[in-house]
Amino acid sequence: MLDFEMISKAARTLKGVTRVTPLLESELLNKQLGFRLLVKAECLQRTGSFKIRGAYVKIASLTDQERSSGVVAFSSGNHAQGVAAAATELGVSSTIVMPDDAPAVKLRNTAEYGAKVITYDRITGDRAKIAQDVAEQTGAVLVPPYDDYVLMSGQGTIGIEIANQLSQRNISADALVCPAGGGGLIAGVATALKELAPETVIYSAEPDHFDDTRRSLAAGERIGNDPGHSSICDSIVTQIPGEKTFPINKSILAGGFAVSESDVYLAMQALADHLKLVSEPGGAAAVAAVMRDAEHWKGKTVVAVVSGGNVDLDTFRGFLRTTA
Amino acid sequence: MLDFEMISKAARTLKGVTRVTPLLESELLNKQLGFRLLVKAECLQRTGSFKIRGAYVKIASLTDQERSSGVVAFSSGNHAQGVAAAATELGVSSTIVMPDDAPAVKLRNTAEYGAKVITYDRITGDRAKIAQDVAEQTGAVLVPPYDDYVLMSGQGTIGIEIANQLSQRNISADALVCPAGGGGLIAGVATALKELAPETVIYSAEPDHFDDTRRSLAAGERIGNDPGHSSICDSIVTQIPGEKTFPINKSILAGGFAVSESDVYLAMQALADHLKLVSEPGGAAAVAAVMRDAEHWKGKTVVAVVSGGNVDLDTFRGFLRTTA
Repeated sequence: MLDFEMISKAARTLKGVTRVTPLLESELLNKQLGFRLLVKAECLQRTGSFKIRGAYVKIASLTDQERSSGVVAFSSGNHAQGVAAAATELGVSSTIVMPDDAPAVKLRNTAEYGAKVITYDRITGDRAKIAQDVAEQTGAVLVPPYDDYVLMSGQGTIGIEIANQLSQRNISADALVCPAGGGGLIAGVATALKELAPETVIYSAEPDHFDDTRRSLAAGERIGNDPGHSSICDSIVTQIPGEKTFPINKSILAGGFAVSESDVYLAMQALADHLKLVSEPGGAAAVAAVMRDAEHWKGKTVVAVVSGGNVDLDTFRGFLRTTA
Repeated sequence: MLDFEMISKAARTLKGVTRVTPLLESELLNKQLGFRLLVKAECLQRTGSFKIRGAYVKIASLTDQERSSGVVAFSSGNHAQGVAAAATELGVSSTIVMPDDAPAVKLRNTAEYGAKVITYDRITGDRAKIAQDVAEQTGAVLVPPYDDYVLMSGQGTIGIEIANQLSQRNISADALVCPAGGGGLIAGVATALKELAPETVIYSAEPDHFDDTRRSLAAGERIGNDPGHSSICDSIVTQIPGEKTFPINKSILAGGFAVSESDVYLAMQALADHLKLVSEPGGAAAVAAVMRDAEHWKGKTVVAVVSGGNVDLDTFRGFLRTTA
């Protein structure tokens, strides 16, 4: 299971390794929105997303023997970079299985962080199978993207930081909204905030057609997404909530939001214009969710996690131009 | 005069008012450059630039009687926003004289921060005269953009933060490079670092044709720029170093660098790609200066101040596309 003590322990492991990312706000954006929006800028984290937190804690928890065989992971990008950087820093070799159509910046960076990268065709390949083969051939330990309690404890350190940052500024947050892919980040953050800021109501944010967490929370059971859709939010596109993440999210979250591509463009533009942040589409989903329904949050204080900023600059340029 | 005690006092005044902006770095960018680049991200400061620091300290230092008459300032944008936001927060009315061709985001934001904005034609108008008229008619106190010791003490708090952030991470910086317009920011930062990190050699960064600080440092006396040039670095375009800032900079700085527009584009791209920061051209000048001559800094640890991020998104998009 995941509990607050595990997250506290993870925070001690990460001290001096990961950054305490700032909790930012813009007076002018708040004025425009009619509510107070505090942005946890995990795009400023090492490797450009929160993923290094969980990866580092997970790899640090392995035995010396396990570490000596290396680690393997599959990921469209952020987890890849997080595992690669964490493994290299811990002196562990890493192999990352990535789709060949992943954003170029993520493929390039994963290799530069020191990983061996194996690409596969997203349509015809089976990334889990490829990773499994690597594990069997080399003895490498699989670092799962989200469905792992130790990994979630690392992501949950963001919740401790948010609670500390709110407390230092005497702020009580009415709500927190966090992007959800497999649900590991939000499960960790929610577990930390349940302990440290139980007054804060927590919601997930996902793109349209990939709102499996939202629908599963409403149904009370894990429901997958319909096939045949795509999304610009590559970092949080998953098929179904995790077996381990969902029970946690079901017990703590109040519900979820789904956002359109236009919502995401507007959020990325606001983050660049008002907070001077480069965010990736999936990373901006929570900001998109609260900005699209400003009236609902009127007068409230809302924290939105921006989970990453790994986007090709050409793609980012296009998103800055696009209007709803 | 300006001394370290004044800057320490300013830091106490700004506690809880301005943000301690992060000192960021990217492992991959460091690897690519061949030296360690630490970026002081003042683009993440309230109002999008460092200017609120000096403006707040200056206005807070006024007597009740002076405050009751309001303040006036002239600025192409960042000082305007800093003065407007600081004045409003201190309950003081403000009038800002701005060129009518200033970036739209800066004009709009200055008004939204609560200032009365008066625009003038950059070719035919005399902004100092207009501000002087406002001061005479209303009794408002002029908040100068750089040539003021109290104002410089506020900007110098960035130097205290940098020294603390380096010390917390056990880093000794070989050099610090900082954008220079009138020279108030770098004079404040240099005065703080001379006390707290005297081993760090300090340099200014300016755009080509507006490298008055660089040339003045080399000559040992204040030298103005030749007329007839323009620059994308709107926030640091000045004609000649300040009467009060230059003697400070002359006594501490080791020299200055001038950067081309291409250098600035590459720096803004690297800041967006690797550090997920939106910077304005003038704000990126110091990063541009160190990136353009990576070989010179090989193996060193260099701090670059990114002084602001107030750039129209359309302009920013264009800069992301432009190559050297």
